[in-house]
Amino acid sequence: MSDELFSRVLAAGPVRALVNDEAWLQAMLDVEGALASSQAEVGLLDTEEADRIAEACSASYYDVAEIAEQSRGVGNPAAPLVRALTERVGGAAGRHVHRGATSQDVVDSAAMLIADRALGALLSELDECAGSVAALAEDHLDTVQVGRTLEQHATPVTFGFTAAGWLSGLDASARRLTEVRDRLAVQLGGATGTLASLGQDGTKVLAAIARRLGLSEPTLPWHTERSRVAELAGALGETCGVVRKIAGDIVLLGQTEIAELSEEGPPGSGGSSTMPHKRNPVAAIAAIASARQAPGLVTTLLDAMAHEHQRAAGAWHAEWRPFNELLRSTGSAVSWLRTSVRRLRVNPDRMRENLEHTGGLLLAERVTTELAPILGRLEAHDAVSACCQRVASGEGELGDLLAADPVVGGQLSRARIGELLDPAGYLGSATTFTERALAAYRRAKGVS
Amino acid sequence: MSDELFSRVLAAGPVRALVNDEAWLQAMLDVEGALASSQAEVGLLDTEEADRIAEACSASYYDVAEIAEQSRGVGNPAAPLVRALTERVGGAAGRHVHRGATSQDVVDSAAMLIADRALGALLSELDECAGSVAALAEDHLDTVQVGRTLEQHATPVTFGFTAAGWLSGLDASARRLTEVRDRLAVQLGGATGTLASLGQDGTKVLAAIARRLGLSEPTLPWHTERSRVAELAGALGETCGVVRKIAGDIVLLGQTEIAELSEEGPPGSGGSSTMPHKRNPVAAIAAIASARQAPGLVTTLLDAMAHEHQRAAGAWHAEWRPFNELLRSTGSAVSWLRTSVRRLRVNPDRMRENLEHTGGLLLAERVTTELAPILGRLEAHDAVSACCQRVASGEGELGDLLAADPVVGGQLSRARIGELLDPAGYLGSATTFTERALAAYRRAKGVS
Amino acid sequence: MSDELFSRVLAAGPVRALVNDEAWLQAMLDVEGALASSQAEVGLLDTEEADRIAEACSASYYDVAEIAEQSRGVGNPAAPLVRALTERVGGAAGRHVHRGATSQDVVDSAAMLIADRALGALLSELDECAGSVAALAEDHLDTVQVGRTLEQHATPVTFGFTAAGWLSGLDASARRLTEVRDRLAVQLGGATGTLASLGQDGTKVLAAIARRLGLSEPTLPWHTERSRVAELAGALGETCGVVRKIAGDIVLLGQTEIAELSEEGPPGSGGSSTMPHKRNPVAAIAAIASARQAPGLVTTLLDAMAHEHQRAAGAWHAEWRPFNELLRSTGSAVSWLRTSVRRLRVNPDRMRENLEHTGGLLLAERVTTELAPILGRLEAHDAVSACCQRVASGEGELGDLLAADPVVGGQLSRARIGELLDPAGYLGSATTFTERALAAYRRAKGVS
Amino acid sequence: MSDELFSRVLAAGPVRALVNDEAWLQAMLDVEGALASSQAEVGLLDTEEADRIAEACSASYYDVAEIAEQSRGVGNPAAPLVRALTERVGGAAGRHVHRGATSQDVVDSAAMLIADRALGALLSELDECAGSVAALAEDHLDTVQVGRTLEQHATPVTFGFTAAGWLSGLDASARRLTEVRDRLAVQLGGATGTLASLGQDGTKVLAAIARRLGLSEPTLPWHTERSRVAELAGALGETCGVVRKIAGDIVLLGQTEIAELSEEGPPGSGGSSTMPHKRNPVAAIAAIASARQAPGLVTTLLDAMAHEHQRAAGAWHAEWRPFNELLRSTGSAVSWLRTSVRRLRVNPDRMRENLEHTGGLLLAERVTTELAPILGRLEAHDAVSACCQRVASGEGELGDLLAADPVVGGQLSRARIGELLDPAGYLGSATTFTERALAAYRRAKGVS
Repeated sequence: MSDELFSRVLAAGPVRALVNDEAWLQAMLDVEGALASSQAEVGLLDTEEADRIAEACSASYYDVAEIAEQSRGVGNPAAPLVRALTERVGGAAGRHVHRGATSQDVVDSAAMLIADRALGALLSELDECAGSVAALAEDHLDTVQVGRTLEQHATPVTFGFTAAGWLSGLDASARRLTEVRDRLAVQLGGATGTLASLGQDGTKVLAAIARRLGLSEPTLPWHTERSRVAELAGALGETCGVVRKIAGDIVLLGQTEIAELSEEGPPGSGGSSTMPHKRNPVAAIAAIASARQAPGLVTTLLDAMAHEHQRAAGAWHAEWRPFNELLRSTGSAVSWLRTSVRRLRVNPDRMRENLEHTGGLLLAERVTTELAPILGRLEAHDAVSACCQRVASGEGELGDLLAADPVVGGQLSRARIGELLDPAGYLGSATTFTERALAAYRRAKGVS
Repeated sequence: MSDELFSRVLAAGPVRALVNDEAWLQAMLDVEGALASSQAEVGLLDTEEADRIAEACSASYYDVAEIAEQSRGVGNPAAPLVRALTERVGGAAGRHVHRGATSQDVVDSAAMLIADRALGALLSELDECAGSVAALAEDHLDTVQVGRTLEQHATPVTFGFTAAGWLSGLDASARRLTEVRDRLAVQLGGATGTLASLGQDGTKVLAAIARRLGLSEPTLPWHTERSRVAELAGALGETCGVVRKIAGDIVLLGQTEIAELSEEGPPGSGGSSTMPHKRNPVAAIAAIASARQAPGLVTTLLDAMAHEHQRAAGAWHAEWRPFNELLRSTGSAVSWLRTSVRRLRVNPDRMRENLEHTGGLLLAERVTTELAPILGRLEAHDAVSACCQRVASGEGELGDLLAADPVVGGQLSRARIGELLDPAGYLGSATTFTERALAAYRRAKGVS
Repeated sequence: MSDELFSRVLAAGPVRALVNDEAWLQAMLDVEGALASSQAEVGLLDTEEADRIAEACSASYYDVAEIAEQSRGVGNPAAPLVRALTERVGGAAGRHVHRGATSQDVVDSAAMLIADRALGALLSELDECAGSVAALAEDHLDTVQVGRTLEQHATPVTFGFTAAGWLSGLDASARRLTEVRDRLAVQLGGATGTLASLGQDGTKVLAAIARRLGLSEPTLPWHTERSRVAELAGALGETCGVVRKIAGDIVLLGQTEIAELSEEGPPGSGGSSTMPHKRNPVAAIAAIASARQAPGLVTTLLDAMAHEHQRAAGAWHAEWRPFNELLRSTGSAVSWLRTSVRRLRVNPDRMRENLEHTGGLLLAERVTTELAPILGRLEAHDAVSACCQRVASGEGELGDLLAADPVVGGQLSRARIGELLDPAGYLGSATTFTERALAAYRRAKGVS
Repeated sequence: MSDELFSRVLAAGPVRALVNDEAWLQAMLDVEGALASSQAEVGLLDTEEADRIAEACSASYYDVAEIAEQSRGVGNPAAPLVRALTERVGGAAGRHVHRGATSQDVVDSAAMLIADRALGALLSELDECAGSVAALAEDHLDTVQVGRTLEQHATPVTFGFTAAGWLSGLDASARRLTEVRDRLAVQLGGATGTLASLGQDGTKVLAAIARRLGLSEPTLPWHTERSRVAELAGALGETCGVVRKIAGDIVLLGQTEIAELSEEGPPGSGGSSTMPHKRNPVAAIAAIASARQAPGLVTTLLDAMAHEHQRAAGAWHAEWRPFNELLRSTGSAVSWLRTSVRRLRVNPDRMRENLEHTGGLLLAERVTTELAPILGRLEAHDAVSACCQRVASGEGELGDLLAADPVVGGQLSRARIGELLDPAGYLGSATTFTERALAAYRRAKGVS
């Protein structure tokens, strides 16, 4: 019992169960079973013996704690598992268990299976998440919102456009993770990568086991060439960054004074009966906390790439924890984000109120642009600026002051000023961009 | 003057000059020039005016120090550059400089140009490096070498196979960097990404500027969706890991007691006249030192992915240094590795001597395998083990002791024992794997 | 010319000039000069010869670019500097330049001098920063402000208390940096740390050079024991974290909708004449961007601690860049924060308005607490909750609704309800804590 | 069941059990118990009620899995624990459970208790480790060994001196960890750090609970001032770097060709019956793998220092996993290193043989130094160099060639040459430094 307590927050979602001890045990056994079957296929082993081995390759027969205990001496869990499997199979077949392989072959291939399975779940969660975000983008194509730069009000956007930006990040992540998943390759090399004890049949066995496990066949064993691990790490790190951006926006847009978004979860999720203004965006916060694990874990994996010679003294063992944690943390981050976007309640009224917070100043530049050809840039700028300063001093609304200004009011009617100050009229390509993002999302999903 | 002193070691090679201040200035100006030309193409600007702007877009007209100094107030170098460019262009055309764009558009697009140019040089160096390594793999297809696991002697390999492992890492890096390079996209969004001030022509200008700069056209502006930066960072980090593995092997194989490889550089490069045994592998060491910069820099870039709202308050500025440093450090790492592998002198005699260092023990398991079907596994194992222990105690060579052993000698002739103990006969698929790696390399290069 | 362009943002303040090439050159020369003088002191060298060496130890005599260029072959800048210094000194004295030392002795000792000088400037900036923050804490001892948790309104605090929290972080940093500074130790060991070529006088020379350079004398050379570097890195990383917290609060409190703080810089610093609502907190943003460099740089330095044997093959060279960058980035972060807090304009009216934003809900729990002993906890809670829900639905102010509520109003007068809902009455130990922080700050400064 | 499988390698030693779920549960309950007792002490609670609360504060009463499950909604495990504790206590006393505190108070204070307890075990293991290393330094004060720089032979050292370098690293770590341990402070602030609901008694309760838990009393609550966490992280990272250096040297010195050190563990620990040359230094390798976790975890903690306002939205939750993992990994690293140094078998014969590997070239410079005053530096250098080149070409031993050389042999007798080439005569201050390190170690331990 050692990591339950914080796991509901930092290891939420389906990935957790796909990377736990039992999943690893089964993945290592899947590798041993496929190894035997592949050797039978190639003619190195009787099919019957291979079948006996394969039958014994179920995690339910073995005790994780015992295997863990025995890993202490030799330094990895594959060796004691092979011993236990050999004992269970027994007889002539027993002698062929793990033939030609080294412990790292089993652990590395199992890691690739684990990654494949975890990425399956992750991509499915990411897909649901993208679906919810796409719906937000679509529903709020015309919901005008303050655009914020450096956390200050800038020119207007739509909330659909904001969501489209989130969607494009989720799409990029899904594409990268899919690419990486397709490149996961089996590991089989024996002691030093030459498959010496399989004589001339090494590459045949390699091809067969790759096919059986549904993994790629590598050009040569990659015991000390860790690009695959690094590429996976990078893609997971990228995904966590995307999650953090979206969840961060949700937290910021949910601040009490801003309140454009809130998470409406089930009772007990971030609300408070005596503080009904309180809307802790618990899911977004947990997504952020999970996603923040990634950069450090990626560093550890990148730093461990320098494996010495044919098999490394420590760099390999150093990968196990961050590999697992990175899958688990990314799984948690995506899962919480999915929860957060599902819970999201958009408050278009509040978006409109916030747009009006500065009394029209957001659109002042647009008035200047309109006046510049008539008055000259400098004079236009000075006239508008003077009115803006008066708004900031609390003398009134920008539209009224501009209309009353002899220079501005002399050129523009109150109605035209009103049009210019309408945020909905100054959205440029926001809608087009949102539609492009939605189209790209649908294309990637294969939906017409 | 502030980073010369350590730059020959940590910023070697051609990338350095492609990411320096002048390169950045020119890249930002290239963006401004292409922006004006694109607007002319779309009809937003007179061609003549666009040409006047484009003509002023040469770094030679501007003073980096002055622009840097003025960046202090506003917090980025694009703003003062735009001011200087506007002044230089002057007149009516001057008013159209930077039209519709925001500072981040210029810096981000320039960053993509910088990355494109740096990756060009990096890929070319990587290619030369791979060429040298491929030659080593080819030349040493049959050069038998100790395979080492956990830094201990294990079963034999060939040096060609060792080099093939290196080659597969270099190939993976080149493939990733090429993929990433193809995805580098222009940035153009204006204040909040909507291109509001370009009215309905925003996406047309976006398409034109992407084409002119030779960058991809993004679905929508990515001011706060930093997957591209993260993906580039991950690929560079992966490359540095590949370099560190190879350079690390070179250092280990060059240790005084091992001496299978040495760097033979020009005078003054790691040798010593009074210590002729001394062969400091200076290039490999500098490659390691450069490559070690990467994991921390990747972390900083991944950690900075959470850009708030439409443009971030600090996370964007935080990218500049690690972005540049990561390109520069990777460039240096690859450049030094290229130098190291070119300088490499392989010592096959020493490889052979090291194989004999343990008096044949490396092949003991092979004798056991041969005897097992005859004697039964256990008896075979015990007989061979006993002889091994006697070798370790210094009683003689393994071949002689096995031949003299009543159990072993009764089954195997001295000649057969000699064959079994020949490392060249226990290489499994080493040659096949090496040839596969060479074929993959040639395929990737497009060489038949 | 290679890192000017982004330096005004990411390398601001006085530290930059203390870690540049010239500073390093001088620091290395200071080490060579002190080495000669120390040998003279111990009787290993004529005083006259030592003086000739010392006289030549001025950076103005040497060309950084030339020394950098020559570092390429040997892999570090100390070797070519020693050659140039030897040539300059010439004659008999020339032969004694660098006697007994190795390149790493010079670079490591210079690094400690650089750190000592940079920490001097850093501590002075940190002190000014703390002074401004202490003044804020003192001036706003009674300025009531919304306390925010998870970016939602919670119970009230004072702005003085907020500033006191900032102050305690700055104090902790200053204490750590001072401790680390006191531990900076000279490096002198010769080729393998034994000072073999100094015969029996090694430790005497070591003591003398430590004294002359104002650094600690280590128990033994620390060529491959890098705790000092790691401890410095950790303390700088901690300082950057403290800066990021404070600057982050400033950015959040300066959001357009919140506006409790703003930076009032000189013209051109974050303001905009046509967007007078715009108050980009440029200094805080640059502080964040600078501070964000630290975690990755600390990682690189921690990761490089495993120096092999007597002197490392790459891990040492890998330290140079992050060592320098970490000092420079921390210097920049602290310098920008000092600027930001100096520019800070506190808006107590806005703090008061934001407190009222939720119509008194922040204090609802206090009313429950008051009623619980009278009504029982559950009934009190239900009655207050019902009123809170009505506030959230926009039915009125909490005070009025509570007074009108038959249960609550039956127990508490409108006046008492008003008292209970007064944020200034629910501050607990805020003032005491603020005063404790101020007292601790003054104690640390030695001010009564 | 989720992290057993790799735990024997990456989470070895006593720390693991001190940071597991049960330990956390008990630590949180210790905080709740001490809170109640402190309030009784101050007069805010009946002693009897406080006792009833304290009695319920045993982890054995609660179910980790259930509390974990309930943490999902609210986002931290303290809230459901408080609920369960309140239920168990029941009645009037139940109402006073957790009074005045917030969840973060409980988790942060528990974290400090966890750190205190883990550091206790860690320091004790570190102490045993240092004891073994000190014994090595003492036993091998005169065991001459090759000094190695850049992984090449350089001038001689003693193995005692090598061990003394290791010892100084362990001493530095122990000192830092002790300092950090003394600074661990209780956390108590309530919702926003003001202890508002404790009225004027907040600071009294704070002082009492600090005393009861054996932690420091902070100047003010540190909910969002995370220097303590960062300082602890830095010290643990430093410790892991020290471990990695020592374990790395053990692996390198244990390479088959070098064989100066080997781990002699119990059967099944790194040896192989059929490969008796094989001495996998399993403990050192596991120490390296554990220690390599640190830099990434430190990064995550440093990066999470920027806690917003009064309590953070995600940065706090992000600390939990790396905080725990860093303690656990450092515990594992130190524990494995302790095992490794205890198992260490030193091979002085091999050290001597390796010294002779280059036929005396290591001492060539010493002959030059002796001849320089007689022949002039240049002529001495040329004569010795020529002999060295002949050694490298395999023409004989350096001593013989020098004696036979007309220039050198004319000045130095064969006997004098023999003396000069004796490594034991060229150790400089190696013994003095070793004794200084031993004396410092004994002083730190308080042993005369």
